[in-house]
Amino acid sequence: MTDATVLATRTRGPVRIVGAGLLGSSIGHALTASGVDVALADTSPAQLRLAVDYGAGRPAREGDTPVLVVVAVPPDVVADVVERELAAFPDAVVTDVASVKLEPLKALRARGADLTRYIGSHPMAGRERGGAIAARADIFVGRPWVVCRDEETSAADLTMVEALALDLGATPIEMTPEEHDRAVALVSHVPQIVSSLLAGRLADAPDRSLQLTGQGLRDTTRIAASAPELWVQILGANAEPVRDVLSALADDLATVAEALRAPDAPGARRAVADTIRRGNDGVERLPGKHGQNRRFEQVVVMVDDTPGQLGRLFGELGELDVNVEDLRLEHSPGAQFGLAEISVVPSAVRRAVDGLESRGWKIASTTP
Amino acid sequence: MTDATVLATRTRGPVRIVGAGLLGSSIGHALTASGVDVALADTSPAQLRLAVDYGAGRPAREGDTPVLVVVAVPPDVVADVVERELAAFPDAVVTDVASVKLEPLKALRARGADLTRYIGSHPMAGRERGGAIAARADIFVGRPWVVCRDEETSAADLTMVEALALDLGATPIEMTPEEHDRAVALVSHVPQIVSSLLAGRLADAPDRSLQLTGQGLRDTTRIAASAPELWVQILGANAEPVRDVLSALADDLATVAEALRAPDAPGARRAVADTIRRGNDGVERLPGKHGQNRRFEQVVVMVDDTPGQLGRLFGELGELDVNVEDLRLEHSPGAQFGLAEISVVPSAVRRAVDGLESRGWKIASTTP
Repeated sequence: MTDATVLATRTRGPVRIVGAGLLGSSIGHALTASGVDVALADTSPAQLRLAVDYGAGRPAREGDTPVLVVVAVPPDVVADVVERELAAFPDAVVTDVASVKLEPLKALRARGADLTRYIGSHPMAGRERGGAIAARADIFVGRPWVVCRDEETSAADLTMVEALALDLGATPIEMTPEEHDRAVALVSHVPQIVSSLLAGRLADAPDRSLQLTGQGLRDTTRIAASAPELWVQILGANAEPVRDVLSALADDLATVAEALRAPDAPGARRAVADTIRRGNDGVERLPGKHGQNRRFEQVVVMVDDTPGQLGRLFGELGELDVNVEDLRLEHSPGAQFGLAEISVVPSAVRRAVDGLESRGWKIASTTP
Repeated sequence: MTDATVLATRTRGPVRIVGAGLLGSSIGHALTASGVDVALADTSPAQLRLAVDYGAGRPAREGDTPVLVVVAVPPDVVADVVERELAAFPDAVVTDVASVKLEPLKALRARGADLTRYIGSHPMAGRERGGAIAARADIFVGRPWVVCRDEETSAADLTMVEALALDLGATPIEMTPEEHDRAVALVSHVPQIVSSLLAGRLADAPDRSLQLTGQGLRDTTRIAASAPELWVQILGANAEPVRDVLSALADDLATVAEALRAPDAPGARRAVADTIRRGNDGVERLPGKHGQNRRFEQVVVMVDDTPGQLGRLFGELGELDVNVEDLRLEHSPGAQFGLAEISVVPSAVRRAVDGLESRGWKIASTTP
């Protein structure tokens, strides 16, 4: 891969990775696979040993002269570690991969760190739990990777961090730290809070109420299973942008609640309708598959709960030359089968339905 | 099927269905398939004709003497139609399938309707859009179907409505109208509002922010694509229970926002951690597959975006005797492949990973 070569030829010393958890180790795996010398450091000798055993790199040594340092430690110690690395390696570019970008930068500025060599970054790589064992070279592939430039950033150093993202298969996106933090407050941090609050309302609910749970509630609360330790740090470090979105959301919520005080009053129905319609507008804007807003139709197929059934289904869809664009399994409480909701391009709906029915599948419904 | 026989032998006249939309027509299809005489009525001649053409029943006639009337009309006209049907068919049990239960009952009581013969019910059947064409006999299979008893309900009439639910493959759950309305406010109506409000915040967001969207936001906002017309009616008819949950949610939200005003203050970190942890507790309580709280582990596999790839994957999982308990496809913006997150029982993780890797699949990660 030529991208990997870009980084390999730029780095005359090793790439040093501080923090051998999921992100640090995953970066290590990918660079090692590209022939880059990776020097790993971690405050936990056990974590470091695991990362090395699994092939994420070699232990860092006295005398290493890294050209690039990647700091992959929890948000609350990012500034400390970046400051130390900038001082220890005066010729290295130092980046970090924490999910909040302004607070570490401010802390470093307050301490008088050499910000010309620091470039914050944030790979939007899904699951952030798991440690060295869960690490994989390809968790960044196809994901956005925010690279934060500021007035002190040199173009050459920026290129080096963007080459790192490209080497790992990610798509670099340049943003200021402020822009990044506002964006993730909106698309990640507030959704986490809202999902947790919604799920929290279920904690003491009667069992019988929960029997009526459908797929909608399952989807809205899925991320409520996230780890509290990590989120306390993330939300604390991005408090102001998160509060701004929460405040707007609280106003919106109060508007709906007020409308429901007299739902038949003039304007009340309209306020509720506007809430749902505005939600329609928002969800339409989310980037879909291939970064486009292509619209798919859904075919829902009943599937027995036995091994091989999904295999047969997708095998036969392949025979029918129907590409599955998205897929969702729904479960019926107490039933030994599920519903597979398959998204296909509109022109393939008829082919899929007729073909599957002729092969004995039950189609539960098609939408829209 | 013996259940269908229960209803068929009980009904010496036709089952009359008023409203030939998705729910009414779907009930019609299922009953017709069981040999029940189904008499359909709809204010729209076009909708009625479609439902009949698609096999949901025959048009209702003068002189029909139904034993059971199923009212499947929009929430805002349920009470009117139920009142009229009770009067027109003095020997019939009348049920409805609207998603709110107390308001129609109160309206009927205020009008002096014969409530001994009215039994409200609510099948929790997912997609409520689509009309007669989208109707399918099996959309109720495995779903809960709430049947509302009150002090005036006779056991025999209750049995008839429960037999209807059983005939259609659903699981009847007896609740009072109050209990039903509070339950759906919590597990359906408030999640809809929250999802819509969250998505609504995206309506005017910068394009660049939306580039950072991940699967978490997609999941939390999926139901925000729902139809405004229907939800205005549902929320208006269940205003008080919905407001109660919204009010508690607003308090929770204010607590988090307050904690984030001074995130390092004593107690603030704890308040945020408690929010996330309580969400963990709530989501753990949701009924999973087979109505149990079995825990699954996830294996994430990279899948090329070409027809047949998922077929090959699931075929090979079948060969490995690995049952897929749940499944989720993630898309990378701009990339021509996706990630298939497969949930399996913990004892199958190793078999799945080793087997798939030996067949050339790339495993992106395993969790937890």
